[in-house]
Amino acid sequence: MMFRTAELGQKISKSEFREKVPVLRQELLEAQRKVRELAKFPVIIVFAGVNGAGKGEIINLLNAWMDPRWLVTHAYDLPSDEETERPEFWRFWRDLPATGRIGLFLSSWYSRPVLDRVHNQIAEAEFNNLLEKILKFEKALTDDGTLILKFWMHLSKKEQKKRLKELEKDELTRWRVKEVDWDNWRLYEKFEEAAERVIMKTSTGKSPWCIVEGSDRNFRSLTVGTIIRDEINKHLEKFERVGKVGHEAPAEDKTVETTASDTITQLKSTTVLDVMDMTLALTKKDYNKALRAWQAKLNELQRNALKKKLSTIILFEGPDASGKGGAVRRLTAAIDARHYQVIPIAAPTEEERAHHYLWRFWRHIPRAGRITIFDRSWYGRVLVERVEKLATEDQWRRAYAEINDFEQMLTDSGIVLIKFWMHVTKEEQYKRFKLREETPHKQWKLTDEDWRNREKWDDYVTAVNDIVEHTSTRVAPWDLIEGNDKRHARVKVIKTVCDRMEVALKGMAPSSDE
Amino acid sequence: MMFRTAELGQKISKSEFREKVPVLRQELLEAQRKVRELAKFPVIIVFAGVNGAGKGEIINLLNAWMDPRWLVTHAYDLPSDEETERPEFWRFWRDLPATGRIGLFLSSWYSRPVLDRVHNQIAEAEFNNLLEKILKFEKALTDDGTLILKFWMHLSKKEQKKRLKELEKDELTRWRVKEVDWDNWRLYEKFEEAAERVIMKTSTGKSPWCIVEGSDRNFRSLTVGTIIRDEINKHLEKFERVGKVGHEAPAEDKTVETTASDTITQLKSTTVLDVMDMTLALTKKDYNKALRAWQAKLNELQRNALKKKLSTIILFEGPDASGKGGAVRRLTAAIDARHYQVIPIAAPTEEERAHHYLWRFWRHIPRAGRITIFDRSWYGRVLVERVEKLATEDQWRRAYAEINDFEQMLTDSGIVLIKFWMHVTKEEQYKRFKLREETPHKQWKLTDEDWRNREKWDDYVTAVNDIVEHTSTRVAPWDLIEGNDKRHARVKVIKTVCDRMEVALKGMAPSSDE
Repeated sequence: MMFRTAELGQKISKSEFREKVPVLRQELLEAQRKVRELAKFPVIIVFAGVNGAGKGEIINLLNAWMDPRWLVTHAYDLPSDEETERPEFWRFWRDLPATGRIGLFLSSWYSRPVLDRVHNQIAEAEFNNLLEKILKFEKALTDDGTLILKFWMHLSKKEQKKRLKELEKDELTRWRVKEVDWDNWRLYEKFEEAAERVIMKTSTGKSPWCIVEGSDRNFRSLTVGTIIRDEINKHLEKFERVGKVGHEAPAEDKTVETTASDTITQLKSTTVLDVMDMTLALTKKDYNKALRAWQAKLNELQRNALKKKLSTIILFEGPDASGKGGAVRRLTAAIDARHYQVIPIAAPTEEERAHHYLWRFWRHIPRAGRITIFDRSWYGRVLVERVEKLATEDQWRRAYAEINDFEQMLTDSGIVLIKFWMHVTKEEQYKRFKLREETPHKQWKLTDEDWRNREKWDDYVTAVNDIVEHTSTRVAPWDLIEGNDKRHARVKVIKTVCDRMEVALKGMAPSSDE
Repeated sequence: MMFRTAELGQKISKSEFREKVPVLRQELLEAQRKVRELAKFPVIIVFAGVNGAGKGEIINLLNAWMDPRWLVTHAYDLPSDEETERPEFWRFWRDLPATGRIGLFLSSWYSRPVLDRVHNQIAEAEFNNLLEKILKFEKALTDDGTLILKFWMHLSKKEQKKRLKELEKDELTRWRVKEVDWDNWRLYEKFEEAAERVIMKTSTGKSPWCIVEGSDRNFRSLTVGTIIRDEINKHLEKFERVGKVGHEAPAEDKTVETTASDTITQLKSTTVLDVMDMTLALTKKDYNKALRAWQAKLNELQRNALKKKLSTIILFEGPDASGKGGAVRRLTAAIDARHYQVIPIAAPTEEERAHHYLWRFWRHIPRAGRITIFDRSWYGRVLVERVEKLATEDQWRRAYAEINDFEQMLTDSGIVLIKFWMHVTKEEQYKRFKLREETPHKQWKLTDEDWRNREKWDDYVTAVNDIVEHTSTRVAPWDLIEGNDKRHARVKVIKTVCDRMEVALKGMAPSSDE
């Protein structure tokens, strides 16, 4: 789910690529020269991800683009005798680049945990432990000043199949595709799940993962090259600014700073919101029929959930006038009032302000078998607070991990967590605002602030793309709802809730008739 | 093992206590007042540790010493219905103090992981996962500005027994001792092991554990009170210095700063080195006999280790002229030269300086079945580099965790890790220096630097006490060797190596005759 932002079909044309590459190569060489001359820190670049997404190719490209004398590439096969007789990380430590050098690592320390998890060789707890070891290893290095960049090269399942077929067709590349690649392709979902966990757990401020869409060769090459150039230059600046002696890391810089994912965003022309089909609609007749059926279903599921003590949390985010309230009412109409709570999130109370921002949400976690519906939620931190600069950059960047931890505690305890982004186009929103202005009983709904928020539309779009990239996980995915047609939106919402509850209830105790 | 520094019999006399307490109370009240008036952050104080070490009593004391209106105490029993229906951390989030308040937490989120581990309800990987959840929880709070202090109240097994007996004898306190307390006492070693892991994994720069010796009431009360006062004042200063608005944590302060354990050190009169019996000695006859027997044993064990692929790492630290070299030679004399390597650690080479400081040690990890002996080691970072200020405070403080991670990788991969601190008294060292000056063929061994190091004797003693507190674990304990008598020292070293190897070999494949 987290990879949705890397399945948008991003492309860079041949002409744009030809125009940009010579400049980029020059700048990469220059960055590499500076790293070598300053000789205060090494650079580690890790490539991992889906087979066929261009990991090996990009390493060849970097070797061609940069000065190969100061570039070392390390790929890891099964450990040798020498290596198996030592602790696992021995070979990685041995291969670490010295200060001033750049090391390219293919899969490396991420390879075994992912493969072992995919092939069920290790349980989840053990998987987490392995990832924690990696975290500590990387932390020891970054604390010491090392720059670590990590690229996750992504392809959708369909794209991967296409890519493997292409490689097989060409006589020159056929050797690259082995039976094991197809075996792994069949395990795509398991890979994706493990990859999601890896990225969530090992993306830290100092060594974040950059997820790169791998389907277009030009796009991925330019993206990776650009990020490497920018991150090396930023790291050099930090050292120059502090004028440190020795290869100690400069003190943490808490001021605003663009990150690798900002660079990706700049290169991107498309976001997850752009690929939604906003024309989806239902006739009144179809709507009435579907709504009635799904409401009956929801009522039944909720009574069942109560019996089985399955709790559900549903949250709504989306622009003003996107129809969140209306969708909430169609849900609650189907549930016994004793069994749900709607929590509208407005400005925090004084008591709430005196606590951590997550505290107010912890308070409203439902009792067993109940439903809590949040109309706006903890995502305020990374949406309105980010865009309106009510939270510092450091605060909202940190919030992704905090939110993931929070949501994992919820889902680990068995709660079904459903997250809706109710979307409308900018034009549709304008129409609705105008209608509100003209309709006396709806005027109260429209404030000056709504018009002001509209001016920051693009900032919100970027923020939404980022929350999907950072917080859409398999257990707590984002559901993007096409909201231009209210009827379509309401039915899709209630259907989604039913589907998720049904799956969870089945998981609890399969009944005999299934 | 890590608790050795809290088993020194520290005491504070009644008169000293009476003199100091009124001042401390005044200062605690003042600190509390400032926290309340600034109202920028909450304070969380966690008490955990051995039963009978005074956890409950100290909470009563703090309630008496401070203004109880702004102090909330939370103790946790089995979860209520309300609580079991929510994620585990719900009740802790609910109870978090607001900004300006101080919350005292008894065991709290540490209780279940430790008990479940001790009673074998969870495996080690799961235990680590629970600790990681705690880490994230505490990080979210400290990142937000919360001050978290954690006290581990310690008693040795013997002291705990004594304490429980005392409580039982007194009619007024008999109710405090339940059968479960004795059950737990019988599991003391398992508790200690779990506690060691908890402290190692959850002591971070922002929320460290303070291990407090709990056997003397006056000592523990004064220690805890003093640390609370100092840490609150330091935290207040940070906020005042930055003059921050909102309850955001001030940017990390990387400059030198005393920590809670420094405060403990100041209160202490005794270190682990002070309680060593430096009079231990062997006659020449006993020595010859013992040495010969242990060397034969070591030779046999090493041949066995080679067969079973059991690797061993032995490291020596200690003052100049403490007899490290002599002890190494008595070990190597018993082993086939093909199967061991002695690595003397001097100033790093240029290549080594261009890498992380641990890199040079990773290189020398033995192949399967071999022994590597380090004459001085990675502890240089927290000994000579600390005392001589060759490493920044930030670097050497961070090194404890890095070293623990490194050593855990070694022991996890099956390596036997033996760490010797060869100790001599300052007087004995003087005698040996003088002898070297006077003996022509030993003069090369004595340099001006040796005399200079001697001047920093007390700094080294503090550093040694700290390494034992931070890095002596059950799997990689420190062995302190009384080195005033070289014969005693050499035999104790070789015997320790034999014992550790024998245990490890038995663990691998119990032979039929045992």
